Amino acid sequence: MNYQQLFDNIRKKNSFLCVGLDTDINRIPKHLLNFEDPIFEFNKKIIDATADLCVAYKPNIAFYESLGESGWASLRKTLEYIPDDCLSLADAKRGDIGNTARMYADAFFNKLNCDAVTVAPYMGIDSVQPFLEFENKWTVILGLTSNKGSQDFQFLKSSEKELYKHVISVSSQWGTKENTMYVVGATHPEYFDNIRQIVPDHFLLVPGVGAQGGSLEKVAKHGLNQHCGLLVNSSRGIIYKSSGEDFSDASREAAKVLQIQMSELLKKIV
Amino acid sequence: MNYQQLFDNIRKKNSFLCVGLDTDINRIPKHLLNFEDPIFEFNKKIIDATADLCVAYKPNIAFYESLGESGWASLRKTLEYIPDDCLSLADAKRGDIGNTARMYADAFFNKLNCDAVTVAPYMGIDSVQPFLEFENKWTVILGLTSNKGSQDFQFLKSSEKELYKHVISVSSQWGTKENTMYVVGATHPEYFDNIRQIVPDHFLLVPGVGAQGGSLEKVAKHGLNQHCGLLVNSSRGIIYKSSGEDFSDASREAAKVLQIQMSELLKKIV
Repeated sequence: MNYQQLFDNIRKKNSFLCVGLDTDINRIPKHLLNFEDPIFEFNKKIIDATADLCVAYKPNIAFYESLGESGWASLRKTLEYIPDDCLSLADAKRGDIGNTARMYADAFFNKLNCDAVTVAPYMGIDSVQPFLEFENKWTVILGLTSNKGSQDFQFLKSSEKELYKHVISVSSQWGTKENTMYVVGATHPEYFDNIRQIVPDHFLLVPGVGAQGGSLEKVAKHGLNQHCGLLVNSSRGIIYKSSGEDFSDASREAAKVLQIQMSELLKKIV
Repeated sequence: MNYQQLFDNIRKKNSFLCVGLDTDINRIPKHLLNFEDPIFEFNKKIIDATADLCVAYKPNIAFYESLGESGWASLRKTLEYIPDDCLSLADAKRGDIGNTARMYADAFFNKLNCDAVTVAPYMGIDSVQPFLEFENKWTVILGLTSNKGSQDFQFLKSSEKELYKHVISVSSQWGTKENTMYVVGATHPEYFDNIRQIVPDHFLLVPGVGAQGGSLEKVAKHGLNQHCGLLVNSSRGIIYKSSGEDFSDASREAAKVLQIQMSELLKKIV
């Protein structure tokens, strides 16, 4: 999926919602445990219930990896099930030296056929470049993350510029707005203006709305650009709204609340 | 495996060699492709041939992940096969927000029962802490990596201190020398003195000897401490010495060359 197609989907659905599939076997409704693949069953129902309200799904790989081979099978099936008009985004936060980064890119882009994958920048250009070599795929680089630990290093200043700005500024030269996004946490809305000065046109993947306390309005105010330029993720706030048999209806309601807000916010630009 | 046990193994074997199991299905000897699990078959033979010469095995997870469920099965079997007197070190370079980092820690320490896992520091304390909560397990934090891209961010200076020094200095307060190691590339021997000033007693996991051009002598000169404090990894330089049926004998010879050098270097401290 390219930049224009992503924007077209945003306009069509009036939404820039990304649904995080952080599917934890211990948190899904108990009745699903009778299915052969409860994780996939849960994801399928969540996707069915929300696919017209969002433009991306983001499984966090940790949740699948913790289940070994069977988790990996659930992940594969989930990614296959994501409809074509939704970006499939593997939240993997991988990063390794060149020849190894190439294996990760192969794993996510070729083998699992994801549209996008999150990548950690600490190891620099050769840890990111192999991902950028794929056509019509997205590399989502950790810029300013949503968690408390983002304070530990990302705000270190070097010649008046914080590390996260260096990371975004330098790495935006490695790819283009057509193949690179940045993770920028909703918990830092005050920094979106700075980030937009560096990458006015790039898409930003924004976690931290909902369970982590970020505000959609503030993110939109400081982050929207003329092609929307935002994918706002909610995981726990959507998928764990109910632990009963109505869980997928409840997820739809939660997604709908966000989509309606997004629809209003999009009127400013579309 | 704790600090003392690791050091005891180093003394017993006169080696601080870590063998990297970057096992690529396209690079293993062709006759192994007839086996049900060629990757595991290859690793088993390499382990049999080198276990008395090294103190750690380090499978890089990318190589397994790129094969999906079957790769994950090969990884699991390989980790089970690593003898008790060798550290099993998953080179995963994971890093995510707290609740997700916990899933990764569970995946590697509980489910796969590794002794150690490599972790990326960019996201700060809550991305590392969940790994440190396990007893007798090791968290190996990326400090100064061996690749060219390490120049992109790791040397950024903030108040006279480069990022990698901040990372090592700050994160050394999160754990102890009993549960934390650092990745420090052999391609930067001139910086080992600086790093030893910050963490004199910690073990350093050193990639980059061999294929990447680092020197064992220089690493030892600047990095050895009184408990050795080094695990020097070689992957491609050992496991791909031959692509014939003699591949495991060839791997043993390559490991033996390094072990003999290490034995000499260890005389200075033991």
